[in-house]
Amino acid sequence: MLWPEGFIAVDWGTTNRRAWRMAADGKPGECFEDGLGVLSLERETFPAAIRQIRDRLGDLPLLMAGMVGSTRGWVEAPYWPCPAGIEQLAAQLIWPEPGRTAIVPGLSLLKDGRADVMRGEEVQLFGAAAARLIPANALVCHPGTHNKWVSIAAGKIQSFRTIMTGELFNLLKEHSILSDMLESAVEPGDGFAAGVARGLDGAGVTAELFSVRASVLLGQRKREDAAGFTSGLLIGADVKAGLSGTDDREILVMGRPDLTRLYAAAIELAGRTAREVDGEQAFLAGINAIAELI
Amino acid sequence: MLWPEGFIAVDWGTTNRRAWRMAADGKPGECFEDGLGVLSLERETFPAAIRQIRDRLGDLPLLMAGMVGSTRGWVEAPYWPCPAGIEQLAAQLIWPEPGRTAIVPGLSLLKDGRADVMRGEEVQLFGAAAARLIPANALVCHPGTHNKWVSIAAGKIQSFRTIMTGELFNLLKEHSILSDMLESAVEPGDGFAAGVARGLDGAGVTAELFSVRASVLLGQRKREDAAGFTSGLLIGADVKAGLSGTDDREILVMGRPDLTRLYAAAIELAGRTAREVDGEQAFLAGINAIAELI
Repeated sequence: MLWPEGFIAVDWGTTNRRAWRMAADGKPGECFEDGLGVLSLERETFPAAIRQIRDRLGDLPLLMAGMVGSTRGWVEAPYWPCPAGIEQLAAQLIWPEPGRTAIVPGLSLLKDGRADVMRGEEVQLFGAAAARLIPANALVCHPGTHNKWVSIAAGKIQSFRTIMTGELFNLLKEHSILSDMLESAVEPGDGFAAGVARGLDGAGVTAELFSVRASVLLGQRKREDAAGFTSGLLIGADVKAGLSGTDDREILVMGRPDLTRLYAAAIELAGRTAREVDGEQAFLAGINAIAELI
Repeated sequence: MLWPEGFIAVDWGTTNRRAWRMAADGKPGECFEDGLGVLSLERETFPAAIRQIRDRLGDLPLLMAGMVGSTRGWVEAPYWPCPAGIEQLAAQLIWPEPGRTAIVPGLSLLKDGRADVMRGEEVQLFGAAAARLIPANALVCHPGTHNKWVSIAAGKIQSFRTIMTGELFNLLKEHSILSDMLESAVEPGDGFAAGVARGLDGAGVTAELFSVRASVLLGQRKREDAAGFTSGLLIGADVKAGLSGTDDREILVMGRPDLTRLYAAAIELAGRTAREVDGEQAFLAGINAIAELI
């Protein structure tokens, strides 16, 4: 461990950021979350946004993961190719301020002509493996702005696939012709299950979305079920793609409890078993493990 | 014809509106188009937006079609159920100002548990049939904010299906993590064709979209091809759904030339024949035919 005084851990995503003060023994202290994701910041505003973190949590070293290291973020931390373990991540940190401020690189995949990238989830995944929240060989579903289906073997991330479910639901909710019908909270009830069934069926998402509006307008669906159906449709299509070609292993669903609950329900509706893992606990385990390797 | 002085025809959509001064003999005169679609207006601002049309084109009667008659528009013109012909539309006009300002109703469909609605395209479809731009029995693809696949028999609209392709592409372009990669104009070239092929394959749209970003970041796709690939992916999925269960008839592709060109290319890539029909000419034929029936 490079920092006997402790450090600040930051999970800086597309739409949100979270920061924790970490004691030298790895215990998390004060923390906060806000909506200053990288999409809401210009490159030149990051130094001020970083100062604000130290103003709130203390003048400590910063170890940051997520989209802050992307081309849309502050300083680019180039992707490291899979398969990869936590040692590679720790060895490839980018230091905008030497010894003082570091960014964890993301992971990339090139496989069968398919390209994919990940930033932020890798810390949770390695952390969950290190803290034995998941087995060393695991199939993980990590919902968020961009859901990731991840295959882990011998503690290394072997391959993964990103599905743009969360961002698409938010776009529909914020900016689309469906927005005034998507205001209800999404619960894993009947409307959600009906949407999951359509998504698992392989109904094309774009071919089904407009029917949400038409069904409400023509009195075929209750307005308050529209958000659940739409979320279910997108998550059902996501689960169909993610489970494709997998064996019947239990799926570890890691992330924020409000999202893991929906994905676990959809995976069970697809006839598979799911176990939820708390993403925050996994992130803190991962960021501590990286800090120890510095 | 109720109006010997002529009238103003308005096609008022989700994202745009177009208005033409029409002579008593049906000839279009001065016209304009702007971005004041219904999504950019609040209900109480419609009277001013309508005054602005008369200020520009003359103090004449108004005959309006499209989303202006929806729940998101000015005054609701209830949907008329399919199958329907142009006589039903003309008989069901809604008159916010009697004799002076009318709104054409949309059409609805309830079939095999599926609900759908249409507003604005029906005028073009009936107009194209009336002006013999399309045969009385036809399969029409009508791209726009919401693409419609429409089955017409004996000059009546029998059934249709809406696919949310155009709006989804615009959401991705304006507001998503892909937005900085979707700035190029979309042309029916190699990038577009590669996207169409993926869409026609049945690859899930949400499962493919993120790969657009990853492929550019990892140097597997040129940044300037990303918009074409993304548009092709969405249109390919749309064409796959629209052609499903159809015989091998020629597809009439009606609408704005910049969009009909892309759909015609995708339909040909799917091994079918397509013929483009100008949507403006069809709209004017349809609105004249309705005006004559008043």
